[in-house]
Amino acid sequence: MKELFVIKIGGSIIDETPALDDFLTVFAAIKAPKILIHGGGKIATQIGEKLGIEQKMVDGRRITDEATLDLVTMVYGGLLNKQIVSLLQAKGCNSIGLTGADGNLLKALKRPINEINYGFVGDVDKSNVNTELIESLIDQGLSLVMPALTHDGHGHMLNTNADTMASIIAQAMSLKFGTKLIYCFEQPGVLMDMKNKKVFDRLNLKNTDQYINNGVIHSGMLPKLKNAFEAKSNGVESVRIGAFNDLNELIKDKQGTEIL
Amino acid sequence: MKELFVIKIGGSIIDETPALDDFLTVFAAIKAPKILIHGGGKIATQIGEKLGIEQKMVDGRRITDEATLDLVTMVYGGLLNKQIVSLLQAKGCNSIGLTGADGNLLKALKRPINEINYGFVGDVDKSNVNTELIESLIDQGLSLVMPALTHDGHGHMLNTNADTMASIIAQAMSLKFGTKLIYCFEQPGVLMDMKNKKVFDRLNLKNTDQYINNGVIHSGMLPKLKNAFEAKSNGVESVRIGAFNDLNELIKDKQGTEIL
Repeated sequence: MKELFVIKIGGSIIDETPALDDFLTVFAAIKAPKILIHGGGKIATQIGEKLGIEQKMVDGRRITDEATLDLVTMVYGGLLNKQIVSLLQAKGCNSIGLTGADGNLLKALKRPINEINYGFVGDVDKSNVNTELIESLIDQGLSLVMPALTHDGHGHMLNTNADTMASIIAQAMSLKFGTKLIYCFEQPGVLMDMKNKKVFDRLNLKNTDQYINNGVIHSGMLPKLKNAFEAKSNGVESVRIGAFNDLNELIKDKQGTEIL
Repeated sequence: MKELFVIKIGGSIIDETPALDDFLTVFAAIKAPKILIHGGGKIATQIGEKLGIEQKMVDGRRITDEATLDLVTMVYGGLLNKQIVSLLQAKGCNSIGLTGADGNLLKALKRPINEINYGFVGDVDKSNVNTELIESLIDQGLSLVMPALTHDGHGHMLNTNADTMASIIAQAMSLKFGTKLIYCFEQPGVLMDMKNKKVFDRLNLKNTDQYINNGVIHSGMLPKLKNAFEAKSNGVESVRIGAFNDLNELIKDKQGTEIL
């Protein structure tokens, strides 16, 4: 099966122009078909503050009200997405920026209101990935650049978790491609030791459970690992978590933490 | 030849949600292949004011400095474009929102600095329209929704005149489709009489020159007519200028002003 890379970036790199540029140089040079999924950085918060849009939190969870939805649609779907696409074009990588609404690439379900009303947040399922259109665009030599935005099919955009979106798309595309999912972030992998930045070379479900139970793995790494294991157990050929600036190694199955 | 509609909207409709929704209902129902090109409304100015981005003018001409470019990329390329796409999806019209950077659909030339430095403004030429990709997307049943944004191929987005972009794309697509260009705006057509809103049924180059010379046609209508005549004399099958809420008639070659 033909290779396909699904690469997710988020966090600080989005706000650091030289780091983002270096990353995109490596991304552009990948010869295999590829999809880049990007979260947002601090820039959405900064623009939101200037516009007087407060970040709403309930019980420590972020809420996407209508003003916040408009903000992320502008900043992630417009500013960041088009900056990345135009930079990739300059590097000879013919890319196309698409949200889940575009071509109905990924329809989501607005999260039901239970204890918390998360607002315009979309939960995604691999059965709703428009794999035909993605395959057709890839066949035309295009690299996809997707912000973590979907739509509900009823006229509303929805804010979606970028890690989950990357996992779901990688799973859906695994029926047609030998898909490799790479999560890129600030750390060199899943840390076993914060001080020395020592990382786990490999993690499986069993030892990960142990490391979670004894507190070695915690916080934001938990949902990321959940998405990573779900991808691995649903047909994705390889899943790796590592640093932005190791992308060139990560695509060669080196560096970072491999998810088994 | 197969029919293709290239429809341009701009001005007040962008800011009036019910009017935009009505327009999109008619647009969605058009069975032939179609491309919607949208300018921006007052919302970019409003958001710009909140962000402290001043509209720069030199000799009465708008200048697109870097802050303004980021603003229009956010608002036109993100907010408005994705709102339109998600609304069309809800109306059963599978649409895809694309700037000129996406898939290298339309590369532009940053306007050379002569007397005025217009900043990040892109001038477009029909030879740079990626007609293959547009045709392929149309063949997959997609309707294109394009903000008036292009790129320079060197990593920068560019602000482009929406009327000109519509004309250029219609011209380029005329090699493959029987293309109909429709400019939609607030007026029922090219006015011969401001008071009674009486419009010209038809205009040709010769009588238009006369009406311009005697001051009947003036101001913002001049560049729009220039784009319209250029389209008509470069292979576009029909060109019509009319009101947003007459779209259903305009697509049937009725209402508005026909450009001969």
